[in-house]
Amino acid sequence: MAAEPESVERILEEHLPADKLEIVNRILYGSSSRVLALPAECAALGEKGNFEVKGHQIAAGCEQLRSPRLVRIGLIQNQIVLPTTAPVKEQRDAIHKRIAEIAEAAGKARVNVLCMQETFAMPFAFCTREKTPWSEFAESAEDGPSVQLCQEFAKRYNMVVICPILERDEVHFGTIHNAAVVISNTGKVLGKSRKNHIPRVGDFNESTYYMEGNTGHRVFETQFGRIAINICYGRHHPLNWLLYGLHGAEIVFNPSATVGALSEPMWGIEARNAAIAQTYFTAAINRVGTESFPNEFTSGDGKKAHNAFGHFYGSSYVAAPDGSRTPGLSRTRDGLLVTEVDLNLVRQVKDKWCFQMTGRYEMYAEELAKVVGPDFKPNIIKETE
Amino acid sequence: MAAEPESVERILEEHLPADKLEIVNRILYGSSSRVLALPAECAALGEKGNFEVKGHQIAAGCEQLRSPRLVRIGLIQNQIVLPTTAPVKEQRDAIHKRIAEIAEAAGKARVNVLCMQETFAMPFAFCTREKTPWSEFAESAEDGPSVQLCQEFAKRYNMVVICPILERDEVHFGTIHNAAVVISNTGKVLGKSRKNHIPRVGDFNESTYYMEGNTGHRVFETQFGRIAINICYGRHHPLNWLLYGLHGAEIVFNPSATVGALSEPMWGIEARNAAIAQTYFTAAINRVGTESFPNEFTSGDGKKAHNAFGHFYGSSYVAAPDGSRTPGLSRTRDGLLVTEVDLNLVRQVKDKWCFQMTGRYEMYAEELAKVVGPDFKPNIIKETE
Repeated sequence: MAAEPESVERILEEHLPADKLEIVNRILYGSSSRVLALPAECAALGEKGNFEVKGHQIAAGCEQLRSPRLVRIGLIQNQIVLPTTAPVKEQRDAIHKRIAEIAEAAGKARVNVLCMQETFAMPFAFCTREKTPWSEFAESAEDGPSVQLCQEFAKRYNMVVICPILERDEVHFGTIHNAAVVISNTGKVLGKSRKNHIPRVGDFNESTYYMEGNTGHRVFETQFGRIAINICYGRHHPLNWLLYGLHGAEIVFNPSATVGALSEPMWGIEARNAAIAQTYFTAAINRVGTESFPNEFTSGDGKKAHNAFGHFYGSSYVAAPDGSRTPGLSRTRDGLLVTEVDLNLVRQVKDKWCFQMTGRYEMYAEELAKVVGPDFKPNIIKETE
Repeated sequence: MAAEPESVERILEEHLPADKLEIVNRILYGSSSRVLALPAECAALGEKGNFEVKGHQIAAGCEQLRSPRLVRIGLIQNQIVLPTTAPVKEQRDAIHKRIAEIAEAAGKARVNVLCMQETFAMPFAFCTREKTPWSEFAESAEDGPSVQLCQEFAKRYNMVVICPILERDEVHFGTIHNAAVVISNTGKVLGKSRKNHIPRVGDFNESTYYMEGNTGHRVFETQFGRIAINICYGRHHPLNWLLYGLHGAEIVFNPSATVGALSEPMWGIEARNAAIAQTYFTAAINRVGTESFPNEFTSGDGKKAHNAFGHFYGSSYVAAPDGSRTPGLSRTRDGLLVTEVDLNLVRQVKDKWCFQMTGRYEMYAEELAKVVGPDFKPNIIKETE
């Protein structure tokens, strides 16, 4: 099998003359994303630890009455470290250690809000439909080991940290959820946001483990902006993105785990469309590499039972409400993407494009109520004789 | 000023080695779009008439109980022909003549459903905020001259034709609307669908001329599938796309008029995201060229008053529910894009990705009703002491 290409951006940079590259980047990526110089220590840590470090910034206009509200968003994408056959605690500890290395670079880069990928501290074992040992990775959203790790980052580096975990809710009958815990830069747990839409596609057998989330569309007001979390498959659901926006989010994170053949042409589209349509920043994070499991599992779509998930293609990026986006991180390597944004852009673009003003939400609330009602008849016009 | 580049796709083809082009195309455009060979007469008509003709096909899987439902979608993008200072009737007649040339190629290509760009028979004069002479382009959705022209195409070529016009509704007090008339392949007018969202951005001063549409989200059941029309600025509104889907559309056309600096990085994102999220085909059409008007108009965003709209960048394309899309037509030339799709792909992708099944529309109907209610309080979580 041919090696996975590193990224579309790398191919374009290597082969297009500068003037053509400028045109292609302007049309495909928008023009407001620029390289952000990071402290030399960040690159050094990346080199030492074999992870990519990339810095970008997305500009906003000057205003007379507000100062810029610069926020540095950090996204971490990573492979698992040990094989899935290793003891659960060793697997998790090894990932924690790895994440701590990358988080250190985020600290040096003065990241304000750091987000990890979906269920970052475990393999994405839901393909297997086996309950053990994978359910043992589930942990408390108040004080589980991954939450504690992220609390350390938060305090050490003065950053808000979004910590996506497999959650065990002991209060509610010990049920499992797919959730993200938001930790303030003081180290305090602000709350959690659960995955609202659970896939039934390909190897994504997550509905065997947890149900649709019940935490609605909360938005967390932090020192570095109002943030929300739309976990993985929720990015395919425009209504999900919409509601986070209507509740006031300025940055919506999309910690994900998704594989090549299935979703890659959609990856650059969905979180970016949400940034445009809802007029906020979005940050999409995907894990990296292929994960193999001890027992074969059915393919779900006519292929032979197999042990390995497809290739998680990384490519984490940030998209802005003006239609621009950063390049993606590598398709193959662990990485840290640091993106400095000016949150003032949100209101500037709202005032310019007026999507909320022209949104006709009252009409849609009524229409949607009809659609889900028992007497719904689609409005179909046919040719009459 | 440098000449406008023809297209991103052309730049990639010219500069990337074949193996890299394949990778980039797979990631950016998906893998199910292939070149469709068209009759030689089509290319000859294009050469003679100086317009681009492009053929693509998007494949679907085989089924046991249904035959493929192959439909050829035709999209026409065009510049205006005469200067905007010419008499209204001459301007319109010249565009009609031009469209007839391109429609002939569509006929030879055995197009089943043909769609023109937004208000195709006139310049996009709404930037001016002048009522005359532009209001004179408004015409009846039952038997206006553009409708009659499209009825001729429908009968001559046995195709459904979507005819976007500036509509004069004589019954309802002579008001003007931005609408698309759907004409059956029998030549009969099936009905009209009005633009649901009216922009207030840049030079798009359309709200001076017409109000938000009142025709809802009707879907037209034709011999070649269930089709709907989301006009121009409606493509920024995910709820608009959603409702067409919930009413059963299999192809949603987006006849548009949009200019470079403002919207180009969004162009490839929005209609394509709708195809993915709503699991139908979308067809986005944009006009071409720059249009100049006799009197200067304000820029709307701090530039000097000017006579010319920005560059309408064409780039019309078709997107599929599986995340793939065709290349775009040229950014600079009139053109016809013929795309053969298998409508069976719609249900196949619905069964695979399950976005409707997992959509939780009941929850959103309730949430949206709360959001638009008078006592709405955003769900914001703050740090407490």
